[in-house]
Amino acid sequence: MDMKAERTASGQAETAPAETHRLAIGSALVALRLDRSRDHVPLAEQIVERLAAAIRGGVIGPGVRLPSIRLLARRLGVSVHTAVEAYDRLAALGLTLSRPGAGVFVSPSANEVPAPAALPRPNPGDPLGLSMEANGAREGVPTGRGFLPAAWVQDAWQGSVLARAGRRMAAALTTSTPPAGDETLRTQIATKLLSQGIPAAPEDIVVTPGATGALDLVIRASLKPGDAVLVEDPGYFMLFQMLERHGVRMIPVPRRHDGPDLPAVEAACLAHRPRAFFVQTVLHNPTGWTAAPSNLHGLLVLAERHDLMLVEDDVCGDLHPGTPLRLASLAGRGVRVAYVGSFTKVLGPGARLGFLACDAARAGAILQLKVLSALTGSAVEEMLLSEMLAAGSYRRHLDRLRPRLASARALVTRRLAELGFDSDEPAEGGLFLWAGLPDPEMAAAVAEAARSRGIALMGGDLFRPGRAPSRHLRINASRSTDPMIFETLREVWPARMRASG
Amino acid sequence: MDMKAERTASGQAETAPAETHRLAIGSALVALRLDRSRDHVPLAEQIVERLAAAIRGGVIGPGVRLPSIRLLARRLGVSVHTAVEAYDRLAALGLTLSRPGAGVFVSPSANEVPAPAALPRPNPGDPLGLSMEANGAREGVPTGRGFLPAAWVQDAWQGSVLARAGRRMAAALTTSTPPAGDETLRTQIATKLLSQGIPAAPEDIVVTPGATGALDLVIRASLKPGDAVLVEDPGYFMLFQMLERHGVRMIPVPRRHDGPDLPAVEAACLAHRPRAFFVQTVLHNPTGWTAAPSNLHGLLVLAERHDLMLVEDDVCGDLHPGTPLRLASLAGRGVRVAYVGSFTKVLGPGARLGFLACDAARAGAILQLKVLSALTGSAVEEMLLSEMLAAGSYRRHLDRLRPRLASARALVTRRLAELGFDSDEPAEGGLFLWAGLPDPEMAAAVAEAARSRGIALMGGDLFRPGRAPSRHLRINASRSTDPMIFETLREVWPARMRASG
Repeated sequence: MDMKAERTASGQAETAPAETHRLAIGSALVALRLDRSRDHVPLAEQIVERLAAAIRGGVIGPGVRLPSIRLLARRLGVSVHTAVEAYDRLAALGLTLSRPGAGVFVSPSANEVPAPAALPRPNPGDPLGLSMEANGAREGVPTGRGFLPAAWVQDAWQGSVLARAGRRMAAALTTSTPPAGDETLRTQIATKLLSQGIPAAPEDIVVTPGATGALDLVIRASLKPGDAVLVEDPGYFMLFQMLERHGVRMIPVPRRHDGPDLPAVEAACLAHRPRAFFVQTVLHNPTGWTAAPSNLHGLLVLAERHDLMLVEDDVCGDLHPGTPLRLASLAGRGVRVAYVGSFTKVLGPGARLGFLACDAARAGAILQLKVLSALTGSAVEEMLLSEMLAAGSYRRHLDRLRPRLASARALVTRRLAELGFDSDEPAEGGLFLWAGLPDPEMAAAVAEAARSRGIALMGGDLFRPGRAPSRHLRINASRSTDPMIFETLREVWPARMRASG
Repeated sequence: MDMKAERTASGQAETAPAETHRLAIGSALVALRLDRSRDHVPLAEQIVERLAAAIRGGVIGPGVRLPSIRLLARRLGVSVHTAVEAYDRLAALGLTLSRPGAGVFVSPSANEVPAPAALPRPNPGDPLGLSMEANGAREGVPTGRGFLPAAWVQDAWQGSVLARAGRRMAAALTTSTPPAGDETLRTQIATKLLSQGIPAAPEDIVVTPGATGALDLVIRASLKPGDAVLVEDPGYFMLFQMLERHGVRMIPVPRRHDGPDLPAVEAACLAHRPRAFFVQTVLHNPTGWTAAPSNLHGLLVLAERHDLMLVEDDVCGDLHPGTPLRLASLAGRGVRVAYVGSFTKVLGPGARLGFLACDAARAGAILQLKVLSALTGSAVEEMLLSEMLAAGSYRRHLDRLRPRLASARALVTRRLAELGFDSDEPAEGGLFLWAGLPDPEMAAAVAEAARSRGIALMGGDLFRPGRAPSRHLRINASRSTDPMIFETLREVWPARMRASG
């Protein structure tokens, strides 16, 4: 391969402010400018920006082999680690394919960039549309989507786990699982909860179709039409739709960085006598915030005083890099907290596996309703998850996932800051960034303009009860590392608009 | 192997009325009496009776090799076909294991007969208990269970289908399926329906967690508490629980052999203005009856006249040996019929796959509710079913299943008749026999006595709205071929009781 590069010796390159390398790739000579003075923009990202543009622009054609990692590192005067990261990101964007033993190639469809179709506006009264939006079933670049990219999740399902599950597949397909869920799986879930400080026995656990299924069962088993419940503002939009559908009165409580606004909780309890409070304590959706221990303590005291059931929705908690406290841990075993967990945020949405852990009486009522709604869950999915937990693959996958997510969060946070978005308070991890604009009108205008260019931004109003105006957008960091997104945002939100804000 | 048999030449044996053969098996000499004068009791069953008793009694110990099929046939003077059938039945009872190339051996656990534990009485107000009973999750001999034995279903999931599915597994686990269900699968379901004369487009179909999931969604999307609906008497007990839970008023309509009692339907329409009628037209549960075309036509006319939605639950229909007519076929595309199908009766309960086919407006409303209850179904299960349908394995499995089921039905029907049970009208196929005793008190006494001996008989009262008394028992033919069941029934329902009836 003919390859020319204007480069300094490695030692010098690490300190030189900016330099342009020319790489011969296929039949093209690609100019690659690395600027070591661009604050906080890692070299890997700069390489990705340039190579992605060359691939998308057709300068590097489909099927062309890219330089090897070692060659790239040497020619650009960057570390092998940087070159690996750059190629990983290109693959994650779908622009390249790796053929073991042969090298890295431009994907056949890499420069078939679809015309950026305008996306329809989400309809607030249409849960299907909202869910399809959040689940990325619609076309466009799903920056707002609620799940990790498939490429980030696939390594959780390693060959050995799938092979073991494959041997049990025929048996699983032809037998029922108990209505509450496979007993081994419930024991594994109880063990996992204990390791997070949440005391739960297998018989307190009901496996459900995702966290959505758990919330549906809790709502139907515990609440009557006309009941009042507290919800977080902002909060999970599907929950609002579910409660509305059930005829329940929603009382919004502002969500702060450290947890729900406790004076507002108390005032709402006195004014409305709510029966339950649905709360996401750890890596809250959409803000990514995690409640402080003192807030949780205060909330539990209020819940005891006002006989409030706390439904703790912890779907994102496993993505937290630390050891956050949960209400379920603070409350111990008892009737005060119904805890909702899920594996779909970490393992992907293809297996709809969530669960509910609560006191035995409530678990019994919920189990009855589950039987009347679906008889049992899926023996196949429960077996697959049980095999993964038994192999320790879930834990190892999380260990790989958290730093990867942290890196994407850092990248997207920095890019959004460059564009002028603000983030009131930082979050510790998870999928979501809660990106602020100067006012709701501007947020709506930016989201609308981005949609017209095929970038699906989820406006913050979707996450507010009654769809109140919001100056925020929810952005899934794991799906928003593509430089194209920021180029589009820069175009649809030009400096003059920013200045006018 | 030392083997002695008192036998006549083959030609004579086929006509001699009764003879006793002595077979040396392991260290035992087993006396095997074949009575060719026992009306309608095939020789294979007589062989099974005797060998099962010898194995369970410990006369033939675990691990002992049985005579080869050819040797057994020769020594007993029966056909090879009869010997094969006898060994198949022993294997199905879990008493023997076949090791390819080595022969047939008594299973290691064959004579670990659990003490026949008394079973708890089903509690009418407890859907969980009823469902666990019907799903065989409880101990005991589940003659009443609602599914096929796993051994009957496993060959549907052939190696090649599982291998292909295995290659798609990681991708399925990490991606969402559309809320309505995988598009390929919905097209396959539509094609299957068309082949059964039911016009449906993929967009009319919503995949659900089993038929139970479909019924739950129809009830919640279409009915308000206080609404009146018609149900069949007898009918599906879980449906009654679901409707009750939803606060709907159930108006029972007698189910006849040829379909619902039409004058009763009309009278109920005039008196109660019901909004829907839930009906199982083909291989009705619990009776096994299939409605006649003229009855379906009359029902459709009444439904048009009284603006009645017909929810046609066709979970067992694929097991019918012929080409029965459905309401959905007669009605064509339109709003009159919501059709509920399922694959669990044929493929086993481990994949919870059912579907609903109805007009686009209703499908849309049901889809919204599905999203609010579970977001989507399981990409993994949908992929597995789609692979099986694509391979043609479902059709081939049904072709093997129907004659096997017919043979079990014939056996159990005959045994029940010998004991004095009556069956008002024969059914064409399917899982269930509706076995009658002289009166409800006697049926209850027999069911109770059998339960105390570990045989779970499902009393007919479970299948009646309001749990009205019934003189019937529902028996799953595929799970009731074990001679032990009939021995127990003979003991718990002695001749004097029969005589007093």
